[in-house]
Amino acid sequence: MSIAILNDEMYMRLALDMASKAQGQTEINPVVGCVVVKEGRIVGLGAHLRRGEGHAEVHALKMAGEQAEGATVYVTLEPCSHHGRTPPCCERIIEAKAARVVVACTDPNPQVAGRGIERIRQAGIAVDVGLLGEESMRMNEMFNKYIVTKLPFVTMKSAMTLDGKLAAKTGDSRYVSGPAARELTHSLRHRHMGIMIGVETALADDPELTTRLSVPAVHPVRIIVDSSLRLPPQARMLQDRTSRVIVLTTAGADEAKRNALTEAGAEVLACGAGTRVDLKLAMQELGVREIGSILLEGGGKLNGAMLELGLIDKVMIFVAPKVIGGTDAPGVFQFGGFEKMSDAIPLREMSVEQVGSDILISGYFRSPFGDHSGGAE
Amino acid sequence: MSIAILNDEMYMRLALDMASKAQGQTEINPVVGCVVVKEGRIVGLGAHLRRGEGHAEVHALKMAGEQAEGATVYVTLEPCSHHGRTPPCCERIIEAKAARVVVACTDPNPQVAGRGIERIRQAGIAVDVGLLGEESMRMNEMFNKYIVTKLPFVTMKSAMTLDGKLAAKTGDSRYVSGPAARELTHSLRHRHMGIMIGVETALADDPELTTRLSVPAVHPVRIIVDSSLRLPPQARMLQDRTSRVIVLTTAGADEAKRNALTEAGAEVLACGAGTRVDLKLAMQELGVREIGSILLEGGGKLNGAMLELGLIDKVMIFVAPKVIGGTDAPGVFQFGGFEKMSDAIPLREMSVEQVGSDILISGYFRSPFGDHSGGAE
Repeated sequence: MSIAILNDEMYMRLALDMASKAQGQTEINPVVGCVVVKEGRIVGLGAHLRRGEGHAEVHALKMAGEQAEGATVYVTLEPCSHHGRTPPCCERIIEAKAARVVVACTDPNPQVAGRGIERIRQAGIAVDVGLLGEESMRMNEMFNKYIVTKLPFVTMKSAMTLDGKLAAKTGDSRYVSGPAARELTHSLRHRHMGIMIGVETALADDPELTTRLSVPAVHPVRIIVDSSLRLPPQARMLQDRTSRVIVLTTAGADEAKRNALTEAGAEVLACGAGTRVDLKLAMQELGVREIGSILLEGGGKLNGAMLELGLIDKVMIFVAPKVIGGTDAPGVFQFGGFEKMSDAIPLREMSVEQVGSDILISGYFRSPFGDHSGGAE
Repeated sequence: MSIAILNDEMYMRLALDMASKAQGQTEINPVVGCVVVKEGRIVGLGAHLRRGEGHAEVHALKMAGEQAEGATVYVTLEPCSHHGRTPPCCERIIEAKAARVVVACTDPNPQVAGRGIERIRQAGIAVDVGLLGEESMRMNEMFNKYIVTKLPFVTMKSAMTLDGKLAAKTGDSRYVSGPAARELTHSLRHRHMGIMIGVETALADDPELTTRLSVPAVHPVRIIVDSSLRLPPQARMLQDRTSRVIVLTTAGADEAKRNALTEAGAEVLACGAGTRVDLKLAMQELGVREIGSILLEGGGKLNGAMLELGLIDKVMIFVAPKVIGGTDAPGVFQFGGFEKMSDAIPLREMSVEQVGSDILISGYFRSPFGDHSGGAE
């Protein structure tokens, strides 16, 4: 480990690190970290760990106690100014008589949006804004979309061969990617509130869609896109009771099937009167139910439909270095497609890295920084 | 530029650098670099620049002149021991009375294969073998295959979208990848003796298949796979005369078409009596004609056929970060494919890097180090 230079950035990085490790624990709340420094020593550390419980600043100031007076408070997100489930953090900082507050970025929540910083400055405390601001914004990219649009942030995760296939022509897909990619996939499940698949995948694999890692982790809500309610009430995900199961269907779906699934513990949501699930409406319905982030784990048809509707924010595609062949083998995005290469949907802010024996290509179809007008619509 | 430590490796890296920059100039000969060092100074530099002209050691020792006596000779490939188009280099080193020879790797050429090193040692000169040997082997991977098997080394280059497509469903493919990838592609043309495409690509694009860069470069021999001789004698590549055109066809191809193409300057090779070009036989025929390396630039059907036959040694796939869609849009490898994911053809020694706005995934379907038993057969 390299030796960190002792400066504002070092303390802010520590605050970001604490916050980022809590990703997946705070539901629709942002993750936030806080470090309180007095006379050259860290005197308080805190992070927001669970929705409805203490904010990062509250934990850190409590640890600091009387030492908070005259201290510098590093916090990764603007302290809140509104009475939510907890009292406003800006008041807590003012009471503690901090001398200086360093904020990574303002809170896009319309209920805060600069008011927290304003209130602290009014109380005569110096506030610096913007240190590692982009890192903080990106860390909360899912919250940032949800808090403004009330729509879930959708991360599409897929594993494909070098020739763009999710499976062999027979449907066999064990395994496309290697153990390191699969471990990262389960870590993504922990960090999203919901996991979404098409019913065909559910029927083919009878998956549990739980988070299986070397340590206990949070399980996502299982969301199945199932226009004509083909999911059997005996499905494993309805037996294990580790987390909720939401079945997205259509208004015309069979009543008896609907009742059977409800009986088995599923929440069945009718999304539109068409023959296929209205995915835009589905996203709104999930947003209303405070599902702020969804990990989309395909099939290719669902990936293609979500992409065409502009509902995918981010993609993480593992490319396994092998060729399976087969023109009919299912591809990663199945949809009508464009006539001109120049019309192809661009992946923005693309990054690439090796994960074990596979390649991970990541990027955005929509801007992660509040511009939700983009790309695929 | 970082400051290089003065040691054996620094001199050998210089020799490798000179050699690698001459890739594409030496036809079926390996590229070789040589540095002669006497009493702490470089006194001779050389590289093999053209088949039939001086070897690296000859150039470097000539530059060193009398200073070669007692010097250390760094050479990236074992000095030759046989009378080819030039006299054996090992004798030249012995005559020059060098004190020490450092060799990166032995020559896989069955006519040399250790005899050069043996001869120099017999003359009482110290020889160290293996310094940066893997770099040197890899630099001459094309030569290494050809000299042993008399078959061309095939590098498949392709540019595909994130969903594995070479073009839109309409066939439009301008452009899949960006300018940096295209510039690298032309650099690959310079470094291969032949460029191979299917006739469908030739008919669709009427390409020149020349090397177009900011500096003059070597043009590859154009090789068209054309089972029923659909290539018109008016094709641009038959007009420009920048390099040879070889048309691979079948024994049953139409005689009049064959004559017309020959008249237009093409060499027409019948490869097998079937309805499709026998690609294995075609590789042998090209090998006999001293085409030691081929850049395969698809279409997907030719890529798939070459892959199935185990004829692709290396792949370089540019992945453009965009999604074109369309189930019928042509994929990068079109062939029957496998039933089990575990049967997929693995890409070995995979590497990945960003090239401009694209991702370059490279690797081998066959081992570059002399094991030609691999993968796809």
